[in-house]
Amino acid sequence: MTTSTALLLADLVGVAVFAASGASAAVAKRLDLFGVVFVGFVAALGGGIFRDLVIDEVPPLAFADWRYATAAAVTAAAVFWLHPQLARLRTTVLVLDAAGLALFTVTGTLKALDAGVPAVGACLIGMLSGIGGGLGRDLLTGEIPVVLRREIYAVAALAGAVLVAVLHGLGQGGALPLTAAALLVFGLRLVALRRRWTVPVAPMRPPRTRDPGPGPRW
Amino acid sequence: MTTSTALLLADLVGVAVFAASGASAAVAKRLDLFGVVFVGFVAALGGGIFRDLVIDEVPPLAFADWRYATAAAVTAAAVFWLHPQLARLRTTVLVLDAAGLALFTVTGTLKALDAGVPAVGACLIGMLSGIGGGLGRDLLTGEIPVVLRREIYAVAALAGAVLVAVLHGLGQGGALPLTAAALLVFGLRLVALRRRWTVPVAPMRPPRTRDPGPGPRW
Amino acid sequence: MTTSTALLLADLVGVAVFAASGASAAVAKRLDLFGVVFVGFVAALGGGIFRDLVIDEVPPLAFADWRYATAAAVTAAAVFWLHPQLARLRTTVLVLDAAGLALFTVTGTLKALDAGVPAVGACLIGMLSGIGGGLGRDLLTGEIPVVLRREIYAVAALAGAVLVAVLHGLGQGGALPLTAAALLVFGLRLVALRRRWTVPVAPMRPPRTRDPGPGPRW
Repeated sequence: MTTSTALLLADLVGVAVFAASGASAAVAKRLDLFGVVFVGFVAALGGGIFRDLVIDEVPPLAFADWRYATAAAVTAAAVFWLHPQLARLRTTVLVLDAAGLALFTVTGTLKALDAGVPAVGACLIGMLSGIGGGLGRDLLTGEIPVVLRREIYAVAALAGAVLVAVLHGLGQGGALPLTAAALLVFGLRLVALRRRWTVPVAPMRPPRTRDPGPGPRW
Repeated sequence: MTTSTALLLADLVGVAVFAASGASAAVAKRLDLFGVVFVGFVAALGGGIFRDLVIDEVPPLAFADWRYATAAAVTAAAVFWLHPQLARLRTTVLVLDAAGLALFTVTGTLKALDAGVPAVGACLIGMLSGIGGGLGRDLLTGEIPVVLRREIYAVAALAGAVLVAVLHGLGQGGALPLTAAALLVFGLRLVALRRRWTVPVAPMRPPRTRDPGPGPRW
Repeated sequence: MTTSTALLLADLVGVAVFAASGASAAVAKRLDLFGVVFVGFVAALGGGIFRDLVIDEVPPLAFADWRYATAAAVTAAAVFWLHPQLARLRTTVLVLDAAGLALFTVTGTLKALDAGVPAVGACLIGMLSGIGGGLGRDLLTGEIPVVLRREIYAVAALAGAVLVAVLHGLGQGGALPLTAAALLVFGLRLVALRRRWTVPVAPMRPPRTRDPGPGPRW
């Protein structure tokens, strides 16, 4: 399998899982069929559209290749009709989101490097490709973006992007090393969710009066 | 009248009605004069800026041609000073929004096709040109985007975009068939509002305890 | 100092102050370290990324030149660890925001003019370069965007952008006149904050019943 075929496959799998993630979030918010497909579309293709705009690959793949939009729409519609146990939706969203994060971060970093973007910028574009769709999904459904919460999310993507850039610099851009980078992101994110790993919060002096109790209020 | 003159006119009319839609929403939120003009600007030109970025027409028309920004600013300021009956603002916003949706969907689809984007992508770009401004308006004014609500909105735009792509494929890209496509979007949207046509929502098992009553909670 | 060196310096200073503004807002919202850096990144580089996309300078400087992202990340992390008196954060955010607004408006307008955008469009791009980062910061942290509130904000940026365009048209694009334009924006914004200058709001007939009292309700 050539790198470009592997990239296409990884991209389409990422589109499907992110579309399912977005659609699940939209179903949980009781949006209608088109709202579900639309949020699925934004979650699946928003990061890639941003990536293609900044590396000047226009029209973005999401519009140039009908398989992307079709994969997103079909997956989102399938989630709309088939989602079996709503009580499990939250976990499903989180796991699918981790898989999409991993795949889009790796392909986004690689595409930016191939487009001649320097390593630091390529890592940022890769990270933003990974987190962009979820950010759009959260803004559309009125949630505080997952990426800003006290969890390992963007940092998992950034770790994978840096690994891709290092492997690419060493001439190791094949499917196997790239899969390892994707698994790094996926694993970091899942372990962080499982073990509730968090990123530190700035210390604040407690307010003197009317403190409604310990812990942050969101 | 040539196609390009017709496109320019349709575009400027779309800019004006979407600016009025955005300005009305901003006035209803009691934003100040510049907030009203800014929301009018985003509602009027946001979809087109997105469209021009993805078809690589840079700088986008909104910045390259001063008539666009001027039409948006003048219309929004006029709404600010002249809006007569605030009680009717909600209906006004919805009707102007439907007209802007129709015009921008048709011109957006056509511009994407003329830029060489394949039909499926062009329909999506056309739909997003139509709904992008309203999406920006709703995000800025803190509303749940209209496009995600249980109403015919994006689907009306998509129907018009597909009609434009089919007519274009048949060589029928003149002003008359394009006007028919715009009227299709406008009519679908208005009838949907009037008859309260909705898009289905996924069935959910009711929660067993602490149900605050029937119907969805937003 | 050449114009391009002055532009780079002004840009990096603007990146740092806007990153501090975004990071302060994120610390006040008790976001985690990566949330703080991310909001700082968006506040610092969001306006410039938008500017570079619409003038077709791709990849945007934020990704092409590692100093931009580094300046944003280091400043945001410093705010996270060093912010001394949280009670003063609100004022700090407002003053830093005014400085970033001034610098990005001037450099944004100048870059658009240099890219061949006509004067009206260049002023709009300059204003959007200035307000874009703050807009992204506010959307991410769930605030009503400052730009829409009843304060002199976008109009200060627009005044500076028009001054830059006029000076540029007169061949006065050196560091001194540009600094004057930046000081105009900064001064207008600070005086407006200090004296509570506001932009007018559309008159509304008071609701007949259940009026919760005078003044706007947000």
